[in-house]
Amino acid sequence: MSGRLAIVGLGPGNADQVTPEAGSAVAEAAFFYGYKPYLDRLALGPHQQAVASDNHEELARAKEALAKAAEGHAVAVVSGGDPGVFAMAAAVCEAIEAGPDEWRALDVAIVPGVTAMLAVAARCGAPLGHDFCAISLSDNLKPWDLIELRLLAAAGAGFVIALYNPISKARPWQLGRAFEALAAVLPGTVPVIFGRAAGRPDERIEVVPLALADPAKADMATCIIVGSPETRIIRRDGRPALVYTPRSATGPDR
Amino acid sequence: MSGRLAIVGLGPGNADQVTPEAGSAVAEAAFFYGYKPYLDRLALGPHQQAVASDNHEELARAKEALAKAAEGHAVAVVSGGDPGVFAMAAAVCEAIEAGPDEWRALDVAIVPGVTAMLAVAARCGAPLGHDFCAISLSDNLKPWDLIELRLLAAAGAGFVIALYNPISKARPWQLGRAFEALAAVLPGTVPVIFGRAAGRPDERIEVVPLALADPAKADMATCIIVGSPETRIIRRDGRPALVYTPRSATGPDR
Repeated sequence: MSGRLAIVGLGPGNADQVTPEAGSAVAEAAFFYGYKPYLDRLALGPHQQAVASDNHEELARAKEALAKAAEGHAVAVVSGGDPGVFAMAAAVCEAIEAGPDEWRALDVAIVPGVTAMLAVAARCGAPLGHDFCAISLSDNLKPWDLIELRLLAAAGAGFVIALYNPISKARPWQLGRAFEALAAVLPGTVPVIFGRAAGRPDERIEVVPLALADPAKADMATCIIVGSPETRIIRRDGRPALVYTPRSATGPDR
Repeated sequence: MSGRLAIVGLGPGNADQVTPEAGSAVAEAAFFYGYKPYLDRLALGPHQQAVASDNHEELARAKEALAKAAEGHAVAVVSGGDPGVFAMAAAVCEAIEAGPDEWRALDVAIVPGVTAMLAVAARCGAPLGHDFCAISLSDNLKPWDLIELRLLAAAGAGFVIALYNPISKARPWQLGRAFEALAAVLPGTVPVIFGRAAGRPDERIEVVPLALADPAKADMATCIIVGSPETRIIRRDGRPALVYTPRSATGPDR
């Protein structure tokens, strides 16, 4: 029997947000490759084996998983959120393109999941209710100048902006620089949502105006949503405020 | 008992892609408001009641649902995909902001789901593997000039672009105009994915170069992903090609 590879999105981290499709893909695989915190979410059986790797080893992990599948095994690569959003699906495709012909012959399936920005948005209203974009702030694989160009293009055109990979020990200054760049083109009142571990027991959601956005509020488990000038806040007595971006927009000359 | 309102994302349309959280929210509600094709996906019990409305009636539907919840009922508003992406969560927030004080006092929960672009991306590789944006092509609630400005800003900055609401009987020319605008700033070889009904029995996924993208390939159930100049295609014998956007990028002066 020829091997197969599933690239599975486990959602934001709450078992209630894992799709049945992802559950089935996990049940059908024998070998699991991923970053340890994602593998730790799986309840594996005695005939299933997890191979953890570090979060800077995506390409090596992809190659290892493809090689195992090419030996005829049922393999799963797991990602948090959705595997197609700043996660393992692109790394596996890169490895296939550069790899041996037999990797192109493999049965590869990608199982989508609820990505972080959707989970964060759901916890505070509808900040992504109108045109939006997602930008990774990691400058490991692209130059910082390109990131800043994209931030300015998106903010200037009125997109709401979701920031993935906002900060890490190795990348301590990028988020502050991003807020500075955005503050130069957006009103200081624009709401910024720090969404940490949305849907998990250690969830922390904070909404602050851009002028007061402090990078220290973010960590590796945080997805940040920066509103557009159209984004609004509804205050509620005894309940968290709702943040939303209306479906209608004026402009371009607003 | 005070009423409550859940705004529930049912995913792309495949029961395997509905989260357990969404299933629970449906089980707990007594009254359901939504566009009929989404309500038709629910297997309701004898004590549950569905109230269908047309897909141009979002705000009226939101108000009706809020009024029912304010009477003390458990109400669900359902969306396909994710309710926060060009769907009902923003309409409910708009209604709350403009509505009576008692609507602000309601328990409102938003249940995220797998949005269309993630499902389409999963069926063809990892086209959203790098920075991307989502734009609704509907000019019912925003001027066409703003849409075109956003298309050009996003393409010019190297974003992959997911197009929601690409075409309808009442909006027949907008998608063609969008392709023309994009073709003026992107290479004609950029892959365009027409993802219709991803994950459903009538699924149809087609990948064509931008220069050959024909709006007639799209209908209301289609989500379109327009690649960036970095997006690549991996041809495979006897299997569909994989389309992906690498995690790394050069530029801004590429």
